[in-house]
Amino acid sequence: MTATILTIGDEILIGQIIDTNSAFIAKSLDVIGVEIHEMISVSDSREHIISTFARLQDTVDLVIVTGGLGPTKDDITKKTFCEYFDDHLVQNDEVLAHVTKLIEGIYKRPITQMNIDQALVPSTCTVLQNQFGTAPGMWMKKNNTVFISLPGVPYEMKALVSDVIIPKIVTEYQRPFIIHKTVMTYGMGESMVAERIETWENNLPDFIKLAYLPSPGRVRLRLSARGSDKKFLEDRLQVEIASLTTLIGEIIVGLDDGETIEKSVADLLVNAGKTLSVAESCTGGKISQMLTANPGASKFLRGSVVAYSAEMKIKILGVSAETIQKYSVVSAEVAMSMANGIRAIMQTDYAIATTGNAGPSKDNTSRDVGVIFIALATPDGTFVEEFNFGQPREKVIDRTAVKSLEMLQKEILKNLK
Amino acid sequence: MTATILTIGDEILIGQIIDTNSAFIAKSLDVIGVEIHEMISVSDSREHIISTFARLQDTVDLVIVTGGLGPTKDDITKKTFCEYFDDHLVQNDEVLAHVTKLIEGIYKRPITQMNIDQALVPSTCTVLQNQFGTAPGMWMKKNNTVFISLPGVPYEMKALVSDVIIPKIVTEYQRPFIIHKTVMTYGMGESMVAERIETWENNLPDFIKLAYLPSPGRVRLRLSARGSDKKFLEDRLQVEIASLTTLIGEIIVGLDDGETIEKSVADLLVNAGKTLSVAESCTGGKISQMLTANPGASKFLRGSVVAYSAEMKIKILGVSAETIQKYSVVSAEVAMSMANGIRAIMQTDYAIATTGNAGPSKDNTSRDVGVIFIALATPDGTFVEEFNFGQPREKVIDRTAVKSLEMLQKEILKNLK
Repeated sequence: MTATILTIGDEILIGQIIDTNSAFIAKSLDVIGVEIHEMISVSDSREHIISTFARLQDTVDLVIVTGGLGPTKDDITKKTFCEYFDDHLVQNDEVLAHVTKLIEGIYKRPITQMNIDQALVPSTCTVLQNQFGTAPGMWMKKNNTVFISLPGVPYEMKALVSDVIIPKIVTEYQRPFIIHKTVMTYGMGESMVAERIETWENNLPDFIKLAYLPSPGRVRLRLSARGSDKKFLEDRLQVEIASLTTLIGEIIVGLDDGETIEKSVADLLVNAGKTLSVAESCTGGKISQMLTANPGASKFLRGSVVAYSAEMKIKILGVSAETIQKYSVVSAEVAMSMANGIRAIMQTDYAIATTGNAGPSKDNTSRDVGVIFIALATPDGTFVEEFNFGQPREKVIDRTAVKSLEMLQKEILKNLK
Repeated sequence: MTATILTIGDEILIGQIIDTNSAFIAKSLDVIGVEIHEMISVSDSREHIISTFARLQDTVDLVIVTGGLGPTKDDITKKTFCEYFDDHLVQNDEVLAHVTKLIEGIYKRPITQMNIDQALVPSTCTVLQNQFGTAPGMWMKKNNTVFISLPGVPYEMKALVSDVIIPKIVTEYQRPFIIHKTVMTYGMGESMVAERIETWENNLPDFIKLAYLPSPGRVRLRLSARGSDKKFLEDRLQVEIASLTTLIGEIIVGLDDGETIEKSVADLLVNAGKTLSVAESCTGGKISQMLTANPGASKFLRGSVVAYSAEMKIKILGVSAETIQKYSVVSAEVAMSMANGIRAIMQTDYAIATTGNAGPSKDNTSRDVGVIFIALATPDGTFVEEFNFGQPREKVIDRTAVKSLEMLQKEILKNLK
């Protein structure tokens, strides 16, 4: 079973917003064994939408369309569906009742003709009720292809996909299994990993596909198996991962099922009953933001301080003015002093501190742009590492945040052994 | 001049990563008057890439391809370019020197055959040097269409687009002007705004396009004008915006030229010579991270505290234990006390504080999930607002961060008058 995801909206094509809907839909479909053939974004143009529908007709099983369902003139998806399916709009009473309840009952606004028009749907479509908004989803079939229209508002789309579309596909269609396993490696470059496993890679069976996903300092190897016998696929993946382990076992740090470093650190801390505090200079709150993006952070994170200025490092974290004067704010000594300071104030097991120059200009530090110190204060002492993450600023901040969490992860894992 | 952006990579199609590159490229091209016709993501499949190239050939002026340039077997863009252009790979000495310098000089690793192969490029291509990575960009032309290949790593791609591709297009091609003006409205629903401005909208000239961009609580109206006479377009947009102001002036809160709220607040603070500090609870560092993502934050941001636990609010921010006991941590009183606390410690002109329950669970607070208090301490006193941002968590954190910066923006603007 194959699908194409089609996003409609000028705001995507001029780069005003990033399309996050397609990734959510793709992930949801991938889990149930639907292969995504293509993702496309087109403008709010009747001709372009119709020609894209015609191109996709009978080449994929599903076309999932998001966007263009609002009540205003620039929203043309519904009219375009009618044109493509040679259909006309009729009022759907259930949708009208829902829209009226939302507008009058919850938003407390008088209902307008445009609101009422939201209840107009193509006469032959299956209506997909949108719990969180006024624009319903639609499901229509032509020959071998089902066309599904969804609102572009992310939380409305997400609820329709998870609660309506996925269950409907699972009930009505046969699909193969697609299983992904990701092996995380650490400390070896992509090209060197590839050379080490070349023979193994060449001998992989056709139904298993390998992808290299490099990111700074690490390479993830994703194995994707596809077939009708789930047990067979799982067993074979296990065999292949065992072979891989004999080849590069020393750099494999674990299996990753899409888990982020911040989630992994959070789980480790909660399971070990340990607490963390953070003192951030150059990362400016990035580490704290990553840790608190997932619920449950209050179980281990006592708090953090973004000490962007020297005064702040002195006043709140207790770094001495002499240390700063002697070594400069971008130094191993200041990083360690910040980590010790926040750990003492917060009375936590671990503390992370960062200081450095994220760039783009050198400012008043003596160190090069991109030079970073990360300190980790632990019950067994405090240590610090120096890095040069170069430029641009965005990369320096991201790599410093990820690196600091990796250092913490390694330290906790060491203590668990 | 028209362009299509083509992203290559299985990781996009299974929803493992969100494609942020296309939006960056689209925005960069839009600014110089290149119209994006379509964005497409396809898998690492030779046939699919070739058939897409063939479909786009001579229908657009530019095809910008990202991804698939790594050194490993699953990276097939270069081979596919050779096949489509009936070309072969040759070693480029300049690229080889750069790769050698990066791998041996900076990464301090022995160079491998796969690294050396990164210097292979199609013999007829124009090489675009990649300052920040080992895979060069490529520029090739067939009939009326230029195909450009770029690495998928965001900061490598961004540098190539900004420093090489945009200047090259600007020098070598004639383009029309595309001017966007976005009018921000606040407090009226999309359908009601549309009814109020219907006649005006129907009378817009053909070269001006209107789009409604609704988000919770606000609707942005984007006017896009396209043509060869920049002055004429600008004047006409000004006339149309003036007409719009007579129709819905009371809900217009400003013009938005794509500037983010954090950039706007930063500029306002720096220009006014004012300083800011932040005390974050439920936003967990998000506000600080947004403010420090742009360079120059040290000019106005003294520092911030992520006071995730009650102890931290007491110990560092000086909130009294009685206040927390009496009103609970999610309360107007605690928010105000946090703002006053951080402002006094940091001795800043302004201070923002947030407290609330971002969800998904109620935890040990008595307030509903989604309830948020934002306090703003200013030289003229401290005030606080209560919101209910509902769910999910991600939305609550984002909206709280943006809202707090909007409150600050409004306050600074008020004092400027």
